[in-house]
Amino acid sequence: MSADVKALIQEGAALTDRALESLIPSATTVPVSIHSAMRHSVFAGGKRLRPVLTMQAGVTIAGARPKGIERLGAALEMLHTYSLIHDDLPALDNDDLRRGKPTCHKAFGEAIAILAGDALQTRAFEVLAGLDCPPAATVQIIGLVANAVGTVEGMIGGQVLDIESEHLKPTPELVDSIHRAKTGALIRVSVVAGGIFAGAAADDVARLDRFGRKAGLAFQIADDVLDVTADSVTLGKTAGKDQATEKATWPAVYGIEQSLRDAARLIDEAFAALDPYGSRADGLKAVAQYLVERKN
Amino acid sequence: MSADVKALIQEGAALTDRALESLIPSATTVPVSIHSAMRHSVFAGGKRLRPVLTMQAGVTIAGARPKGIERLGAALEMLHTYSLIHDDLPALDNDDLRRGKPTCHKAFGEAIAILAGDALQTRAFEVLAGLDCPPAATVQIIGLVANAVGTVEGMIGGQVLDIESEHLKPTPELVDSIHRAKTGALIRVSVVAGGIFAGAAADDVARLDRFGRKAGLAFQIADDVLDVTADSVTLGKTAGKDQATEKATWPAVYGIEQSLRDAARLIDEAFAALDPYGSRADGLKAVAQYLVERKN
Repeated sequence: MSADVKALIQEGAALTDRALESLIPSATTVPVSIHSAMRHSVFAGGKRLRPVLTMQAGVTIAGARPKGIERLGAALEMLHTYSLIHDDLPALDNDDLRRGKPTCHKAFGEAIAILAGDALQTRAFEVLAGLDCPPAATVQIIGLVANAVGTVEGMIGGQVLDIESEHLKPTPELVDSIHRAKTGALIRVSVVAGGIFAGAAADDVARLDRFGRKAGLAFQIADDVLDVTADSVTLGKTAGKDQATEKATWPAVYGIEQSLRDAARLIDEAFAALDPYGSRADGLKAVAQYLVERKN
Repeated sequence: MSADVKALIQEGAALTDRALESLIPSATTVPVSIHSAMRHSVFAGGKRLRPVLTMQAGVTIAGARPKGIERLGAALEMLHTYSLIHDDLPALDNDDLRRGKPTCHKAFGEAIAILAGDALQTRAFEVLAGLDCPPAATVQIIGLVANAVGTVEGMIGGQVLDIESEHLKPTPELVDSIHRAKTGALIRVSVVAGGIFAGAAADDVARLDRFGRKAGLAFQIADDVLDVTADSVTLGKTAGKDQATEKATWPAVYGIEQSLRDAARLIDEAFAALDPYGSRADGLKAVAQYLVERKN
């Protein structure tokens, strides 16, 4: 990636990390086990891509990074981390490693890992309720975020479809609905919420939503391709796991080449939604481009 | 209990059930397993005591039941149910029965039970974001509710303390902090949030908070006593479980007689906080009285 986008992502990640550091109780706060477990997973080397998208969506609308938007990004990262902790549990994906480190239940036991995931979801909504923006915008953000992590078109729904579709023949419709829900919805709301925090009007929200929907799907396709093509060391998690468990993925339906073309086309369509913002959207575009071209 | 309080609770429970029915996706909504699991546990015969407290707190402030308050009660009931589902999991309390029916993981498997708990928490916050009250009140309610189910002084913190204290000698301080957090905080916020929804001013909130804190602790003491004195059939769950697992309970520290006296004293203190409201608080008092005198 170019030096510019690298600096952009590193700066956004550093801001997010500082916010997370201040927003999650310290590892010496009673009960210490739960706070240690929350911190173990939140500070396990995540790239903070959702918060970076949130910040750049804010820049796209406001022209500069809105004050306090890193707390919104931190809340979204907490939700992402909670989903990873629960996804890794023995009853779900049964993963021992995440980003090259022991998963939460491996380090703290299943009971604390379940509760640490629960607590990160709770704390995320508490942080959202404390955002420094007009109450009506806060309420709108909370409603959209909850919908994006929910069962009908959101993250949990996608996880359930994913579990239920193992060993089924993957159809285009199934893969599309899993992707839109499981990871797409949270990416999409990361963009939209950043815009609302920055004062987006209804037409801005519609454009950011279109951008987030296309970019989120492209991101997941790229992720599926990486699972097939990268090795475990580069990836920091067990590679080839989707194939081994016969998960419904984009490459399983369309093959690698078509998947890469689809991801590139979706990014082009996503960019088109941002035309009205000119150069103010450059950061958001650069981060999205990085998402689909990354190697781990 | 008197015919009055019985009718009050039944009416509140029926309103809550109707709200829950409309707010949780139907069992035929895709993915069906998660919605079936959510409904299994939400409609397993809960008495809806938290929503009833919420409604009566609303009546105490507004003089009549505020329109739409049953959605607030339903959200609090979803949070209570989510905590029961996760508490029952094999990695936590490992319970097969809850209210005389199979626990969620017994009926749907562990993966779906974990996700159904997660989803009930999410849906609760989504419902709160959609409450029909001024945005500033909604934001205040969401912040307080999230705090009450969180790790520092809330429900999850209490669950962790409870797990960690098994097989430790129960001290008065430990039992007090577990009770305040594990069940007390959600009871307390059920009362306070009902008041805020009804337009409570700051001094009303302080009074309701005092009432909720005292009544919540009395309720948990009564629950601990029931676990020792009732049989499993009356209780609808495995009785004597606290003793068997050496949990830190009020009777374990103070004995049955002193526990009953403490509960009665706390209820008197709770009632005193409601003196300024005269007969408008009669419903709230009657429900609280019922909570400590119930036999199951």
